[in-house]
Formats: sequence, structure tokens, C-alpha cells
Amino acid sequence: MIKKPLILVTNDDGITAGGIKTLIEVAREFGEVVVVAPDSPQSAKGHAITIYDPLRLKKVDIFEGIDAYECTGTPADCVKLAKHHVLRGRKVDLCVSGINHGSNASINIVYSGTMSAAMEASLEGIDAIGFSLLDYSASADFSQGAPFIREIIAKQLAGTKGTGTLLNVNIPKLPTADIKGIKVCRQAKGQWTENYMKGTDPSGREYFWLSGEFINEDDGKDTDLWALDHAYISVVPSTYDLTKYDELEWFKSLETIHL
Amino acid sequence: MIKKPLILVTNDDGITAGGIKTLIEVAREFGEVVVVAPDSPQSAKGHAITIYDPLRLKKVDIFEGIDAYECTGTPADCVKLAKHHVLRGRKVDLCVSGINHGSNASINIVYSGTMSAAMEASLEGIDAIGFSLLDYSASADFSQGAPFIREIIAKQLAGTKGTGTLLNVNIPKLPTADIKGIKVCRQAKGQWTENYMKGTDPSGREYFWLSGEFINEDDGKDTDLWALDHAYISVVPSTYDLTKYDELEWFKSLETIHL
Repeated sequence: MIKKPLILVTNDDGITAGGIKTLIEVAREFGEVVVVAPDSPQSAKGHAITIYDPLRLKKVDIFEGIDAYECTGTPADCVKLAKHHVLRGRKVDLCVSGINHGSNASINIVYSGTMSAAMEASLEGIDAIGFSLLDYSASADFSQGAPFIREIIAKQLAGTKGTGTLLNVNIPKLPTADIKGIKVCRQAKGQWTENYMKGTDPSGREYFWLSGEFINEDDGKDTDLWALDHAYISVVPSTYDLTKYDELEWFKSLETIHL
Repeated sequence: MIKKPLILVTNDDGITAGGIKTLIEVAREFGEVVVVAPDSPQSAKGHAITIYDPLRLKKVDIFEGIDAYECTGTPADCVKLAKHHVLRGRKVDLCVSGINHGSNASINIVYSGTMSAAMEASLEGIDAIGFSLLDYSASADFSQGAPFIREIIAKQLAGTKGTGTLLNVNIPKLPTADIKGIKVCRQAKGQWTENYMKGTDPSGREYFWLSGEFINEDDGKDTDLWALDHAYISVVPSTYDLTKYDELEWFKSLETIHL
């Protein structure tokens, strides 16, 4: 008998968000699902972890027939607690994170709680996939990308490249039938141009509130932004190795420094 | 007359930490220094940014002759506010972050507030360097690495490879005379094996507190951990492009998915 895969599901929008529900429904078709997710929204928390405060973990009964826990920490905390406490000693076959409310394409990956949860699993040797839908509206329909999510999970479970692969999957806001397919891409070079909303609070103190506009500075046709703009789902194989290998040679000159 | 460089200084241990003081003293030898740093410790905040709450910024007079601001946000928030408000319209020549209390070598870069501040500058096109000292003690002597920090800053200001280079510099806990020099390295593969301290709080509720042990899984002699173990300062040229280019080909098979 083949052992059923064990799949850890998490997210950054919080355990009651719509996206995680869809992801659980798809993941449970493949094996045993355990959910450990934040008890409150954790968007833009990057790869934060909680070291100065204790964490709480509470079993919740909100997904029928599924072991689920809400955690007071960040998305990365959830994955650490799942691996080292909830699922201690068990082999996790896949970690899926999301479905995030909004894009994690291009540079958004570095701010993303969804992707930091997936990255945390990856660096602990667990294959991981973060899913995001390019829809910020409260009534976002997460089911549209589900048939593709199902196929991506199936392929990852069927044969992995190694231990701890990390995929950043973004889904255009389109009906399933209008999604043209999947493109495997590199991360586009883009950035946020910030504008701070400046104001005065009821106590007369000045405040600054982040807003901004995303600028795509990359006209490559091999990027995630290109794929999404052309009705494809983008898949960017990603890594926690931040070394910029093509600059190692240039910076060797620093080795000539002697006091 | 050559324009004096404008150098932004920030950190994650907070504006009153010992490390930033040393960094300011070195940076001010090269040009105009402006400090925007968190008003409280922000270790392990990863690349978190604050989007759901307003930020506060307060001018403080704690470094003689230096424009300094404390900010309620994360390290990445500090850099965004510096660029888009405090220094709006001015060209920043270099951003230096630190000196962090403790290592940001190997995988620690992904959790690091110090490095996320530097990365934020990098992705906004500003050359950036994060400095960390491998000393967690309250009485850490940040001055030991200062002569090397001076030379690294001088070299970066004298000639840059491009816009937005990012260096992760870690300094061993050694007297200056015992530091053998600088090694330009790749990020070592390592990870934290976590142990959660479990307890019961005064209200009878269970808590989990993160602790753990760092494991170096990489025996390469070209890594930052090797350099630090052998009395060298490690410099890892780093990037916010998380694409794992050598996996693009393998994952192309996902493009065969059609519904």
C-alpha cells in the first residue's frame, strides 16, 4: 500500500481567509492535510519570525475532517511550529501556502508572507509552493485557478527535482477557461514607487501611511509579469540562496584590503 | 568641487544600539550622513513592511551634528521613508545598515532586519551594505571591525559595479589585529533546527517560545561560514532576484499542463 502524502497548508491572510479554504479543498484530494495558519492577517510580514515573544497555538474545528491549528505568529512561525511541534517526527511531503489575496509576482516575493512560509518549508527541506491570485477584491473567486493548482500539486507530488524546491505561482484574475496555460519564468525586475499619505491624527501628531504604485522595469518576455499580462499562470522556481553569483568575481577586489 | 557623498545609515537593533553608533562614526568620515532607524529593536523582522498602520517619524538629537530620525516601523519601512520622504528628491550614494548584534551569515540573511533594510535600498537602486558582528553579548565591541568597514565603504564609494549592489558583510568576533582579511564568498547552506520551549503562562495557557541551534550543512571553502570560522570577514554579494535559474529547465514540464 502506498502511503498517503502528508501536506501542510498555511497562508498569510489568516486561517479564516477565502483562499486557504480553496487550497485545502484541492490539497485534500491528494492525501492527509494538516493546517497551521496565522490567527490574523499577516500580509507583507516578509520573512519575520517571532523570537522575543511566546507563541500560542489553538486547535480549531473550521474545516470538516481536517486537523487545523491557528497560531499567533507570522507565516514563517506557523511552518516552524508545524514542523517542530505539530508534525514533529513526521515527513511532510509538500507545503502549500495561499491562495494569497493579490500578486506575489516580481519583487513582491520579498515582502510576501505567503512566500516566506513556503520558503521556510523549502529551507527545512520540504518541497513548497506558494499560490497567489491577482485579485485584491473582497469577493475574489479563488476557485477559478483551482484546476491548475490541482495539476501543479499532482505533478509536484508525482516527481520532485530534489528536497526543498520552492515555486512562486501567480494566477491571473480570469475565468478558468480564459487562462491560456502555465509559463515557467524568471522573476521580473520591478519595484514600488512609494507615496506616503501624510496626515495628522486626532492627538495632533503627524503620521505617514504607505501607499504606492508598482512599476515594471522589465520588458523581458521570459518574466512572471509578462506571463500574467498574457493570461498565463506564472511559475517562478525560487531560492533562499541570495548569493549574486555573477558578482563574485567583481567584488574579489575587496580581498586586496589589508590594514 | 566634488560633491560629498550622501550616506543613509539604518539598522534593526534600534537607533540607540551600540552598533549603529560605530557605523555612523565611520560613515561620517566620507560625507553627509542621515540616519533613519527604528525606535525599538526589530531583529528577525525579515523584509516586513507596515501597510495596515500609520508610521511615525521623530527627529532626534543623539548623534552630534548628524540629522537623525527614529521611526516606529520596520527596517525596510525606515529605508522607504528615508528615500520617499526625508531625502525625497536627493540622490543617496550609499546605504549602510548595522552594525548588527549577531551573525547574518548563511541563511540568517532571510530573517535579518539589517539585511532587509539594505535590500530595500538595493531594490530602489541604491548601493547598500549590511554589516554584522558575530557577538551577541551586551558588551560587544563594535570598534574591532571598524577599520575594515572603513575600507569597504571607501572602495564602494570609489567605484561601484552598478546601481543597487548589495553586500552582506559579517565580521568575526576578534580583535582587529587577529582578523586575517576579507573573503568574498557565497552564502553557506545552513539552517536552524528549532526547539520550542513549551510552558504554561500565569493564566494557565500553554505557550511556545522559539529557540534553536544553527546547523552548517555546507563544507565548501568558498562560503561565508568557512571565512568566518577562519578569522576572515565574509562579504557575500547578494540579490533580491530569488529566481532559481538552474531549475527553470526542469520545471518547464509544468508548461505541458492543459485542462
